[in-house]
Amino acid sequence: MENKNESITRQEDDFAQWYTDVCKKAELMDYSSTKGFIIYRPYGYAMWELIQKDLDARFKELGVQNVYMPLVIPESLLQKEKDHIEGFAPECLVATQGGKNQLEEKLIIRPTSETVFCDHFAKIISSYRDLPLQYNQWCSVVRWEKTTRPFLRGSEFLWQEGHTMYETEDEARNDAITMLNTYDDCGRDLLAIPFVKGKKTDKEKFAGAEETYSIEALMPDGKGLQSGTTHYFGTGFAKAFNIQYLGKDNKIHTPHETSWGVSTRLLGAIIMVHGDDNGLVLPPNVAPIQVVIIPIQQKKEEVMNKANEYYQTLKKAGIRVKLDDSNNTPGWKYSEWEMKGVPLRLEVGPRDIQNGVFVLAKRNTGEKIIVKDDELLSKIDELLKTIHTEMYNKAKQYLDHHMTRVNSLEQLQDALDNKGGYAEMMWCGNEECENKIKQLYQATSRCMPFNQKPFGDTCPCCGKKADKVVLFARAY
Amino acid sequence: MENKNESITRQEDDFAQWYTDVCKKAELMDYSSTKGFIIYRPYGYAMWELIQKDLDARFKELGVQNVYMPLVIPESLLQKEKDHIEGFAPECLVATQGGKNQLEEKLIIRPTSETVFCDHFAKIISSYRDLPLQYNQWCSVVRWEKTTRPFLRGSEFLWQEGHTMYETEDEARNDAITMLNTYDDCGRDLLAIPFVKGKKTDKEKFAGAEETYSIEALMPDGKGLQSGTTHYFGTGFAKAFNIQYLGKDNKIHTPHETSWGVSTRLLGAIIMVHGDDNGLVLPPNVAPIQVVIIPIQQKKEEVMNKANEYYQTLKKAGIRVKLDDSNNTPGWKYSEWEMKGVPLRLEVGPRDIQNGVFVLAKRNTGEKIIVKDDELLSKIDELLKTIHTEMYNKAKQYLDHHMTRVNSLEQLQDALDNKGGYAEMMWCGNEECENKIKQLYQATSRCMPFNQKPFGDTCPCCGKKADKVVLFARAY
Repeated sequence: MENKNESITRQEDDFAQWYTDVCKKAELMDYSSTKGFIIYRPYGYAMWELIQKDLDARFKELGVQNVYMPLVIPESLLQKEKDHIEGFAPECLVATQGGKNQLEEKLIIRPTSETVFCDHFAKIISSYRDLPLQYNQWCSVVRWEKTTRPFLRGSEFLWQEGHTMYETEDEARNDAITMLNTYDDCGRDLLAIPFVKGKKTDKEKFAGAEETYSIEALMPDGKGLQSGTTHYFGTGFAKAFNIQYLGKDNKIHTPHETSWGVSTRLLGAIIMVHGDDNGLVLPPNVAPIQVVIIPIQQKKEEVMNKANEYYQTLKKAGIRVKLDDSNNTPGWKYSEWEMKGVPLRLEVGPRDIQNGVFVLAKRNTGEKIIVKDDELLSKIDELLKTIHTEMYNKAKQYLDHHMTRVNSLEQLQDALDNKGGYAEMMWCGNEECENKIKQLYQATSRCMPFNQKPFGDTCPCCGKKADKVVLFARAY
Repeated sequence: MENKNESITRQEDDFAQWYTDVCKKAELMDYSSTKGFIIYRPYGYAMWELIQKDLDARFKELGVQNVYMPLVIPESLLQKEKDHIEGFAPECLVATQGGKNQLEEKLIIRPTSETVFCDHFAKIISSYRDLPLQYNQWCSVVRWEKTTRPFLRGSEFLWQEGHTMYETEDEARNDAITMLNTYDDCGRDLLAIPFVKGKKTDKEKFAGAEETYSIEALMPDGKGLQSGTTHYFGTGFAKAFNIQYLGKDNKIHTPHETSWGVSTRLLGAIIMVHGDDNGLVLPPNVAPIQVVIIPIQQKKEEVMNKANEYYQTLKKAGIRVKLDDSNNTPGWKYSEWEMKGVPLRLEVGPRDIQNGVFVLAKRNTGEKIIVKDDELLSKIDELLKTIHTEMYNKAKQYLDHHMTRVNSLEQLQDALDNKGGYAEMMWCGNEECENKIKQLYQATSRCMPFNQKPFGDTCPCCGKKADKVVLFARAY
């Protein structure tokens, strides 16, 4: 058994090391024998299951149907859309051998599945009656990455990928926005993470897409984290794959496509946005354990009886609760469940029982509250909601305070170097300025926020006319 | 849009072709551009989701935790257990290239994950306090098969694989039986399929296992279908991977291991066991749509109002219901939803409304029942239960009637050739007799049923002493 009390690196000493420490010590993941391929341990995987459950219900409410597509893509199929293969070729894992024989054609382990979806769509779409198609799959994808970090960038990660086909451009464009809003809702309700929603510049958009939209989150080290994307493809793939339908007008048309995805990168966002020097701090709705009960002097029968009674009551009420009756000391248990970020700790000892009370400790603030025995359910219900709101508001405040308007490259550099977060800049729309800023300051354009409020008309980088607000940041 | 009314091959004309027709025409799957890798279409995948939901809840009730392990296994890791690699080497898909470079070590796309689980277990197990570990993952695996058939044998299939470690042999052996019973319960309650439970002979057991147990189902063409297996590994893998723990006795011990899995092969079992010449017949509990409402003369407002009212009422009650208000004729709709095996069809037309009734048609028997308007929920609830029981009983009767005791090789051949199903035979325990029977009659030993009732003491194959009852069958 590992000792959970081992101290972890402090955030201010080395944020990157703090992150890795938490991933390991909170038992979210472990490294496997293959570089870049991690093991999702039960506690980390349970968080992913809660995200899946939330999103899957939202998707189905919108008419999305789940499917499962092959893990492998024949090389020739992946090459059908030119921009797409250019984007993905450098990071593909390639199978060349089946059983004892060389394969006739190389098989690519899917880095994303646009091509296999389109290959299938070409077979099943023939009439407007077949549209829209809103498909999604939950799976893993492989991208051969040189530098990897748990959950943030890996050679394999878990995700969902939605792929749709619509009759009209409007419907498809609308779908890309609807799904982005769906991710944003999940951030607000489940992850307690505020996102900036916006459109990617041409330089940063997905290989093969006409438009890419993204949700961007801000980490406490001042770096941005792209947390999900949706794409409008126009008819590019559909034409490459010869997908057509007979319209209501009895003419042949090409359908309009979108795709959208979020991944286990969201776990990385949760860890960083909310965590502290004692470890994870989990938002209640994505916490595998919402309340942990720690009996004080658990050898006393009345203590264990009371602890069990609380456990049963909470469990019956649908609260995700754990009773820690292991032989460790209460102090040891406190540290362990703090490391694991359990939102509420319930302590109950002989004196509490005499007084008809128990103690609740909030993980996010450390605050301790004495609660009357008969207020168990109502108080816990209330506090779980309060904690969620507090955590969301804290993250929102941090985001708002790290959004800096800049009117010159000097101000841009100052914001990036001394404050962190997003630098809001007027931009001419020219990729050369993005390249220059990347080269000079190691910052990239994160998105052009939907909420565009121009505050000037000149691009500080080239001095030309600017009409777009764009966010620059250093990013994961 | 495909024409669902196209006739399918009749079972008695060509059962194999009937099966493929149903898989395609009921839109359960489609072929992909890679041989042996199928696409799970929404209707087929929804069935798998219902199986997942049922089993996952049963697993968690037993203390099992979900994890996710890497998709790839370094060649050297897969080779650590000798029997295991011998079993799987001929059917591995192998990646040799990452990005633009040759890999330093070949990566095997997981055919099963014993080795990666053990590699991880070695890191996280050190004390008896760490045990038991009951892990499971839902994923796909790849086995490079020459001959493939939808759901029954594929180069990629979806499954769950449980992997556990226990302190004692008893606990581990008990786990292998418990999980087999769990699968059997799922067959009884969800799939309406009776299984024969038993132990595999040494010849048929899993590569690396000490014991393999299986659930075996009987198909209407008289062939057996192994539908799930559980394995007791002893300490073989644990020793190969150097997994040890410090016991309560303060001594070093080696833990005992099991693994267990079922796959999308269960979909194949459902299709074959219950299907008929009109297509799928789905047990209500695994039917993505349990009731389909077909309005008669749907242009009349009162008809659509009533159909909508029924739809809302059923949906609110948690019934999986679909209202088919497409422009197709009622007859066309009947055929389509019969093909898709929807357990109950609800018809409602102007005359029914006048009479305060509607009509229910049972897919499994074709029976039509006139029901009073106010008995909607109670009658449908009752009929869904009845249909499940009828379907289970029919399959059980078929199984019982195709279990033939044989006392000679002639009787064995007669049973296999003329009746189909399982031939129950006394067996000496010698692999040579299994080989001979396989060579002569293309039949394999399916299992030694738990319910052993010896009916002789001589092996009909070699004439030597026999004390085991074994089932022989031709099998998928």
